[in-house]
Parts: sequence; C-alpha cells; structure tokens
Amino acid sequence: MIRTTIIGASGYSGAELLRFLSHHSDVTIVQTIAASTAGRRVRDVYPALTGVHELTFEPLDSLRTNDIDLAFVALPSGEAMRVVSQIVPEVSRVIDLSGDHRLKDVTTYEEFYGRPHTSPELLEKAVYGLPELNATSIAQAHLVANPGCYPTSAILALLPALKMGLIENHGIVINSLSGVSGAGKTASQEFSFTELNENIRAYKIGTHQHTPEIESVLQLACSQPVAVSFVPHLIPITRGIYTTVHAHMKPGKELNQCRPIYEEFYRHSPFVRVRTEVPRLHDVLHTNYCDLHIQPDPRTGHLVVISAIDNLVKGAAGQAIQNMNIMFGIPEHHGLL
Amino acid sequence: MIRTTIIGASGYSGAELLRFLSHHSDVTIVQTIAASTAGRRVRDVYPALTGVHELTFEPLDSLRTNDIDLAFVALPSGEAMRVVSQIVPEVSRVIDLSGDHRLKDVTTYEEFYGRPHTSPELLEKAVYGLPELNATSIAQAHLVANPGCYPTSAILALLPALKMGLIENHGIVINSLSGVSGAGKTASQEFSFTELNENIRAYKIGTHQHTPEIESVLQLACSQPVAVSFVPHLIPITRGIYTTVHAHMKPGKELNQCRPIYEEFYRHSPFVRVRTEVPRLHDVLHTNYCDLHIQPDPRTGHLVVISAIDNLVKGAAGQAIQNMNIMFGIPEHHGLL
Amino acid sequence: MIRTTIIGASGYSGAELLRFLSHHSDVTIVQTIAASTAGRRVRDVYPALTGVHELTFEPLDSLRTNDIDLAFVALPSGEAMRVVSQIVPEVSRVIDLSGDHRLKDVTTYEEFYGRPHTSPELLEKAVYGLPELNATSIAQAHLVANPGCYPTSAILALLPALKMGLIENHGIVINSLSGVSGAGKTASQEFSFTELNENIRAYKIGTHQHTPEIESVLQLACSQPVAVSFVPHLIPITRGIYTTVHAHMKPGKELNQCRPIYEEFYRHSPFVRVRTEVPRLHDVLHTNYCDLHIQPDPRTGHLVVISAIDNLVKGAAGQAIQNMNIMFGIPEHHGLL
Amino acid sequence: MIRTTIIGASGYSGAELLRFLSHHSDVTIVQTIAASTAGRRVRDVYPALTGVHELTFEPLDSLRTNDIDLAFVALPSGEAMRVVSQIVPEVSRVIDLSGDHRLKDVTTYEEFYGRPHTSPELLEKAVYGLPELNATSIAQAHLVANPGCYPTSAILALLPALKMGLIENHGIVINSLSGVSGAGKTASQEFSFTELNENIRAYKIGTHQHTPEIESVLQLACSQPVAVSFVPHLIPITRGIYTTVHAHMKPGKELNQCRPIYEEFYRHSPFVRVRTEVPRLHDVLHTNYCDLHIQPDPRTGHLVVISAIDNLVKGAAGQAIQNMNIMFGIPEHHGLL
Repeated sequence: MIRTTIIGASGYSGAELLRFLSHHSDVTIVQTIAASTAGRRVRDVYPALTGVHELTFEPLDSLRTNDIDLAFVALPSGEAMRVVSQIVPEVSRVIDLSGDHRLKDVTTYEEFYGRPHTSPELLEKAVYGLPELNATSIAQAHLVANPGCYPTSAILALLPALKMGLIENHGIVINSLSGVSGAGKTASQEFSFTELNENIRAYKIGTHQHTPEIESVLQLACSQPVAVSFVPHLIPITRGIYTTVHAHMKPGKELNQCRPIYEEFYRHSPFVRVRTEVPRLHDVLHTNYCDLHIQPDPRTGHLVVISAIDNLVKGAAGQAIQNMNIMFGIPEHHGLL
Repeated sequence: MIRTTIIGASGYSGAELLRFLSHHSDVTIVQTIAASTAGRRVRDVYPALTGVHELTFEPLDSLRTNDIDLAFVALPSGEAMRVVSQIVPEVSRVIDLSGDHRLKDVTTYEEFYGRPHTSPELLEKAVYGLPELNATSIAQAHLVANPGCYPTSAILALLPALKMGLIENHGIVINSLSGVSGAGKTASQEFSFTELNENIRAYKIGTHQHTPEIESVLQLACSQPVAVSFVPHLIPITRGIYTTVHAHMKPGKELNQCRPIYEEFYRHSPFVRVRTEVPRLHDVLHTNYCDLHIQPDPRTGHLVVISAIDNLVKGAAGQAIQNMNIMFGIPEHHGLL
Repeated sequence: MIRTTIIGASGYSGAELLRFLSHHSDVTIVQTIAASTAGRRVRDVYPALTGVHELTFEPLDSLRTNDIDLAFVALPSGEAMRVVSQIVPEVSRVIDLSGDHRLKDVTTYEEFYGRPHTSPELLEKAVYGLPELNATSIAQAHLVANPGCYPTSAILALLPALKMGLIENHGIVINSLSGVSGAGKTASQEFSFTELNENIRAYKIGTHQHTPEIESVLQLACSQPVAVSFVPHLIPITRGIYTTVHAHMKPGKELNQCRPIYEEFYRHSPFVRVRTEVPRLHDVLHTNYCDLHIQPDPRTGHLVVISAIDNLVKGAAGQAIQNMNIMFGIPEHHGLL
Repeated sequence: MIRTTIIGASGYSGAELLRFLSHHSDVTIVQTIAASTAGRRVRDVYPALTGVHELTFEPLDSLRTNDIDLAFVALPSGEAMRVVSQIVPEVSRVIDLSGDHRLKDVTTYEEFYGRPHTSPELLEKAVYGLPELNATSIAQAHLVANPGCYPTSAILALLPALKMGLIENHGIVINSLSGVSGAGKTASQEFSFTELNENIRAYKIGTHQHTPEIESVLQLACSQPVAVSFVPHLIPITRGIYTTVHAHMKPGKELNQCRPIYEEFYRHSPFVRVRTEVPRLHDVLHTNYCDLHIQPDPRTGHLVVISAIDNLVKGAAGQAIQNMNIMFGIPEHHGLL
C-alpha cells in the first residue's frame, strides 16, 4: 500500500483527490491537511464523501512526513513552493499540483506569476508530469510538477502535430473555455453566481501564466521554438476545459495524414482518445480522459484540433494519480476508471 | 417632471431603477448616489445602460436634497434607516426599498433583523407600499416602505382568499424559490458560482425576516390573526421568485368559487394576472407582473396558489416605480410596460 | 457473481445502472438491451464509460433470459409492464424501475397513469423496493417495484413522524423541486434548454402519478389513512430532488423529540442521514444518500422536514442496486460508496 | 407612422421584434403572422408582452400586403425565400432576417445551405444590412438581407483592421461561442436542457454556412480575397455571441495604432463600442451594442479582437430595426436604447 498525505485537501482539487484515492485499492490516505477546515471531519465539509473518508482535516503543523511514501500538494501557487521545499528533503515522492514548479526558467516564472520564486533550485529537479510525454522520467522522479489544466488540454492537442512536423511552429492560436472551478474556491464578487451566470468573458489575453508553460514544454519536446497566442475564456459551467487549436499546416503535408498520426502517437496512452466525432464536454466530465478531434480546414490550410478534459481530473487530481501510478509501477489507469 | 435621486444606485435594485426610470417620460434622474462606485460613470459600471444614462455615481455626502421631489433609497437593511431618517425631513417623498420600515412593531424588527432600530418613530409613519392593498394611503404617503420580494409574492397570493373568507387563517404553508440576485451583490464563497450552480438549499426555515412582514400585513388587511410557515429556497437562477402556497379551505366553501373571487379582487390591478395556466417564471421576468394560479386540491381540502414575480421588478424596483406613479397621480403602469 | 441484464440501458437511469454496476465487484453485466441504440457500442453512446463497458446495445428480441440471475427493467412506464410480464416467468429476480408495479390498486393506476394495466395480476406480487421500509420482503421478492424519485424523497421524510405518531395524518403538504433528467430523454420543445434555463414551473398540481404512490405506501406502513397535497416543480438543474414537507404536529408532542426519533428510526439505514444542518443538493449528488433535516416550526405547530436525493441514484439506479444487494444477501452499500 | 407586419412572429427573433417595436414611437404593427401559433393571442404565447401587444397571430394566408410600408420576415432559411419572393413585388420595403439573401453567389448558397435557391434573381438585388458598412445602400434598399449573428460579430471585429491594412488577409481565425437561442425553437433531444447544461461542443468546424457570409462581405468591403477559419461552439447560456478573432499583423504596423484606428472607424456608429476593458457578455445582453476589444499580442504578432453581441438583438431583431430606421430616415438608435 502506498501511504499518502494530501496537503491542501479542502480545495476542489484536493476533494477530487480524496474521491479518487478512496477507491484506489493500492493507496492509504494517512492525513488530510487543510488550514481553512482544520479540525472538521472530511464528511462534514464534503458530505458526499461520507462513508468513504472518516478522516479529519488537520493543520499544516500536524504534518507527519516520516510516515508516508508520497505527498500530494494541492495548494495555490505561491503557497505550494514553501511547503514543497520544506517536505522534499523528508518525503521520497512529492506531486505538486500548483504552478510553482512547472517552468524551468525562474525569470519567466517571476514575470508571469508576479512573485519571486523562493526555491528556484527545485525548478531543474522537477519533472513535468504529463504522462503522455514524460512517463520514463516521471517513474524516477522525486518531485513531479503536475501540469496545469489549460496546458494539459493544449499540449496534448499540439504535441503530435508539432513533433511529426505537420504544422508550423509559429502562428499557433489556442482558445480555451473553462468552467469556474478552475478559479478555485473564492469569495469574490467577480466569481459570484449572479456575476457569472449567463455571462462569458475572456481574460489575461496573451498574458496568462499558462502561456509559457505550454510553450516551454512544447519547445523542449519538439526541439524547436514555439510561440502560441493563448486566450482563456470563463463560461458558466462548473467543471471542464474545452480547447480549440488552430495551426498552419506545413506545405506538402496531406490533410488526411493527420488523424492517423495522432492515433499512432497516442496508441499506448490509455487516457487520450482520438475521436472521429467532435467531442462534447459531457464525454469527459468526471473522467481522466482527454478527447481529441482532428479536423483539417483545407480551405484555409489550418489544422483544427479540439481537446476536451475535466479540469479537476485530467487537469488536476486525476493526472496526479496517473503520475502516482507511474511512479509506483502500478498500471496507469488504476483507480481512474 | 418628477425630479428624483437614487441612493444606493449601484446594487441590483438600483440598476433596475435606473433602467426603468430612464424610459419613464415623467421622470428626471438628478443624482445617482453609490458609495462603492462613487466617481465612476454609470455607463462604465453598467455598460448596458450606455446612451441611456450619462450620470456619474456620487458619494452620499454629495446628496442634494433640496432639489428633488422624490428619493429612492435602495440600500441594504440597516444602512437604509440611517439615510431615511436623515432625509425624511428634507425630501417630501421617500420610497425605501429596504426592510427597515415595513414592520410596525420595533420589537419584531429587532428580533428578526438582529439589530436595534435607530429611528422607530418612522415605523408608524411609513406606508406599506403594496399598491394592490394600499393605493389610497400610498398616494398620500411621505414615506413608503416598499415591500420585500417574498412578501409581495406571498401576500398577493393569499390576500383575496383570506379577505373573502375562503381559507383558514392557520395552517398556511408558503414555499418560495428565489434567484440569487435576491441576496444582493456579495463577495462570499457561499454565493459563488461553483457553490450555487446545480445546487439547491432551503435556509432560515421558519425564521426568515420576511415571515413577520407577511403575517403582519395580512393580519392588518384581514383583521384576523394569521400565522404562516415560510420556507425560502435558493436555486441556481439569477432572477425571479416562485411561490407555492397551501392553505386549508374553510368548510362549506365551493372550490370552484375560488378563481372568480381572485379575478374579481384584482380586476383593477394592472399588474396582477389571474391565469388559468400554471405560470412559468419566464412569463414575468423583466416585467412588473405578478402571475397567480388558483388550484383547489379537492382530495385534501387545500387551496393551492402559485405566484410568480421578478424579484428585481415587482419585488423591488418596478413596484417602487408603481408606488411613485401612484404618489404623483400618474397612471400606475407608466414606464413599466 | 450475479449475472444481470439491463433492459432499457440507454436512458438516464440505465446509464447510471451501467456506471455503478461496472464498479460492483459481485456483478457481471451479461447484456445491455436498448431499442433506440441497438447495434451501437456503449462507449460510443456514453464515452464517459469507455474502458468500463465494452458491451454493445442489443435489441429487445436478442434478450436471453435463461442466462441471468436478475434483470433490471429501466423502461418508461407503460412499456415496462409488457416486458416485465414477459420475463417474470423466466427470470428469478426482476427489478422494475418504472411506475408500473408500484401501486396495488389497478383502478388508481389507470386513473393516474391514464392507460390500462395489461398485467394487473403482478401488482399484488410486486414488493415495493424501499429498503428502509421493506428490507425483509425485498430479500425474498421475485419482482421488486423500485420506488419513484419523488416518493423516495417524500416517504423517507414522513415515515418516522407518521409511524411514531408525531404528526397528523391529514394536512400534509409536499413541495418538491426536480432536475430535468427526471423527465427522461426527451425531444420536445417543452424540455429544450432555452425553454427551461432561468425558468421554474410547477406542474400536475395535486394530480401527479406519484401522489397515490406516496399515500398508499405510507398508509400501508402506518396503518392509517394518509392524504398529501403534492406539488412538483421543474427547475433548471440536471439532477436531484429537493423536497420540503410540512405537517401538523400532534397535540402534546414535544418539538425537540422529533430529531432523536428520526435518528433512531434510521439508525440501521446506511443511506439515510439525519443532519443538523440544512442539506444542500450538492451533498447528495452522484451518491445514494437521502439527507434529512428535521425542523419544527413552533410558531405555527408545523413539523418541517427537508429531504434531498439524487433522482438518478437514490431515486432510481442506486436504489435498484441497493435492492439487488438485499435480494442477494450482499451488504447493502456494496458498489454504492 | 411606419405600418409593418412581422412574418414568423412566434420564433425567438420574432418575439424580440415585437418587444422592441412595441416601444418604437414611429411604428404600428399591423399584423403578426405565425403558422405554428395562428389563432392564439400574442399575450397568451408571450405573457411578458401582455399590455404591450393585443394582437393575435394570424396564418400566412391572412397576410395583407397592400396595407403596409415594411415587412419583417423572421422565418427559417429555406422558408423565407419563398415568402420574400412572393411579397417583394407587393411591399415596398422588406427586411429578411434569414440567411436566404445574404450571399451573392447562388452556387455557394446551395453548397453551404444544402438546398436549391428558388429565387436567385433576388440575390443581386438584396442589400446586406450591416449598417456600419452599408448605411447608404440600406437607406435606398427594397430588400435588406439582415446579417447573421456570427457574421455580425466577426465582420465588425475584422472590418477596420482589414480595410486599414493592419492585418494579413489570410490566416484569420474566428472562434465564436453562442447561446442556445441561436438554434431557434427546436424540439430535438440534441437541444434538450439535460443534453446542453454543463456541456460544450464545437460544430460544423470550417463548414458553417456563416463562413462564406463572413468572407464574401469582407472581400467586397476590402477589395481583396479573405479566407477565415471559423469554429462555432454551443455553450449553456440562452442568449449572446462572444467571438474571439486572431489575425496576423502586417509587417511594419505599430501595435499601438490598432485601437485608435478602430475608434476612428466606428466614430459615427452608435452601436459599436471600442472598449479598453475586455467586454463581458452581460454588457450587451438585451441591447443592440456590439462591444469590441482590441488587444495586440506582440509576442506572436497576432492582433486579437474580442466581440460581444446579443444574438437576438444586434444579431437579429435589433439590427433589423436599426436597418428599418435607416430605411425610413429615422435616427439609427430610435426604439433601441
């Protein structure tokens, strides 16, 4: 049994971790750490988990690191790096769900996150936890930086086309639609029901902190510079990310080559489905799947790729568990179907 | 032209006042007072009002009372009474949309609102602004207490049956469903999109501050004690109140008498529609109508009455304008169709 | 292993049965029968079930009854009775999720369902599948009539109070709010998104077919006549039922006795939670729980009970599996947490 | 007074026409023609219009053309062209809200709409009714083809940049999000609440019939070939279109020139607002505004333009009334603020 603790267990991603891990036959949850709900039972904060979890949330200073094989850190970016740098020397495996260890370049981090990085020495050490890209490194990793929700959907949509030379590495456009849970638990008027219901808004156009994450991972994976214009939109749904990518086909590439190349690329990836139908968000909600649809637009020479995930599962907790499975030599899909 | 100022103009009710009054051919808006948005133009806070309002929100201490015929006070309960008591000596007509002057009994106020009343001497003076009940007094009133949203829907549903002796005055059950805008503009996690979407919750069961408002108005109107068991529910819609009332038919009353009695009762009320179909909330949204449906349940001896309003119109701003029209001798529906 | 077939597997309840049974360690799904999707793979109709179900929907005439221990019938009322009467002689255990076998009295059935009953001889034989009431009979039953969604929420709310003599058996008021999935998969303008979004409507006031189900089950259980005034409402959410019950306390009953009586009554019922907080619908979504909240209203002498369930789980598929567990001597909660 | 008839008055666009025209001081509605609701009163089909419209829907064969100055045709594409070709000889001004007369090229129409065109001779005659582009021609037009909802949002976003040479005419990407009312009143399972709530799906990727409308209008206006890759998405809101456009800046163009050029271009267009904030859909709902936001992305050389409209107002009925105002020499905004 893998003994694990969830730090930041009362947020949306933490709750998803609890839900999935409770049905994972190889895992024991040792502690659930959550400052804001410390002292309350999990079942009282999340009644839907009654009978599944009989633990009580504990404050951070109650954390016992000597007792566990793995820690999940599900804290907001900025808070996470302090905790991660503290526990990395004591815990043999750490999965950080925040954005704090996903970028290799500390300057880029500080520019896009708007704060100094307090443990830059961990950036090089951290393995970017996208199993479809880095399974071998993840298996050996001490610290896994679990990918962001937008980057997961965008990178999986672009990786085969870039790696196999189907598309140009410039002029790439990424439009994403996100459910509101992506913003975490918030108490602001901006995220109130009345403000968001029957509303849409784009935000951080070209400046979202996930932009350098998408670019740097693709650059490293494809050994070429990559620039993307990324526009996230908030829409009135609770969960899910739906990403539409446009890229220019390279000259001489046959449009009908595209889907087979994607199918081949993800042949061994149990959670990526290359589908002939346009995916609906419903098809992936509450699952760890990333559904892709490849649609060349021959009139304009674009390749259009649609990508759908559940932001709290493949975009957070589910992917973290997929990483855990790989780290501990368990079949990748255990506890996730 | 009626010269008016809206105090508390940046909340949801204030914005509805702005929207309706801007199309009212007898009204000039002199000032829009709003502490939280003071200094910003109305069009920047409410872009949908561009071209309609070229005013700028001003702070409360900029209020000029010597220049106006009427003040609308659209502040939260507790704040409103301070402003009302300050301006009542200076402004000849005041309509208070808060709950601060709806109850005659200061003890009840303090029990249900959980705060002391700072100007109890105004309670007796204030006229309860339900036009279908009090048109004559409203016409003469110096201070109108604009009814609450739940009470408007419940009182209009019960008034004919109680007054005409169709139902018992005890054993009355009121269940109401409310859109989230009823809670005003809030920055709390409890009212966040993620918390309320796909959710339902009852609250303040039997203890809501609108309970004594419903009871005291009905008692006074019907000259008999009235007790109601009132349960409000919050559901994931932005606007609207849908109320279902159950009451016991009195012995000897013919069930098929009920609808004609309601039709007769509201014959001269332009905004109450007694309908043969069950109303849908859509039928009243963005309007000042209160739709009623009268349905005896002969198996159990209950009279069931359904009542639907828009909480921001007939439940707040629209009713306030209806009161204004009556106060100034204008046809009741002006600016409201 | 229990070998089972789901007949009517492509509706919302059928899909929930598939989802839950796929994780039930004691069950093998032999066939999935669905006329409208026959020939298509389960994973193509419900992509979220990929990797979980590799079956293909088959037409009804492919049904093999000699091979199974249990059949779930998840067809609409009216269709179900034809299939049930055909398979009951051949299958040793049948759970009918429709309304066709819940009433004992064929006249009442024909009045409220508006059609003749083609196999009235099964009405007496069928056991009403509410585990909290009938566990012993369910264990032995050949044919279980799985309760309706509204009746599950209402009966669990009223049963202890009626059985223990806390409330009068007349003057009972039941208001329920339902998500739209309760109407099944429909292709009508009435259930279109644009029609239902931001809308509310009551329907079948006092005439809903679940009214006699609630009354007859309570009468039988409590050995006294029971009449309820039941008003269902449709609101813009996908899943869930939220029921608010008002009943008159009997004279001499202490209000603070109520909650302990409920707690005692459901002490051995793993899926009924008597809670001190008002339940939110979120607390039960995707679970088999029924959350109850007991709130006397001393001002009016009413007992108010709130009840929340997921209509597709405790109100349909989950309860059916709970019944299956009881019929096969498996712990009641297996496959349901 | 302009005497007008609405043909197809019971759909969503027809109802919006009724709502706006009823407050337009220069217009009399002579007849409301609607096959599906013929014989019913407007107030019974749209209770929110009670007191505003006391007309009754009439069947098409009751249409009196000799009595009117203008006909609005709000029928589905395919139906509209039959009615338009029939009334054009008899009515001096016709505004067709369908897609039947927006394309000049009959072959393109037949390819993208999938049906033959029965009156191709009208295509040349029809004036494309985008006031910001064609006001002079609209003023003289006999037949106005009111623009599609997606094209309105996309063309207004692209027109200044293309005309003023800021962007390349190839590599243009248009992603649009639409509310469900854009699909009209439908009775299909695909548009049911349960299917669309908490869901997203792209559709007709690169093949939507609005693609050639966008391209041909921009080509004609800018005298250069234009190719766009257009992906529409359906999201769970009732009204509104939110369009995000990406285009490549031309070499040598200064990024900070862009917004001033847009501001200058729309200086005399009362319903186009070039805003410094990112627009929210809320800002335009129930209004005739098109809000634009211009955001260069210097890292990638893209110009990003955001465009928000209400699909039933600026995308249909409101724009039709704006066209009517121009045709009759009335100020463009009459009846629309």
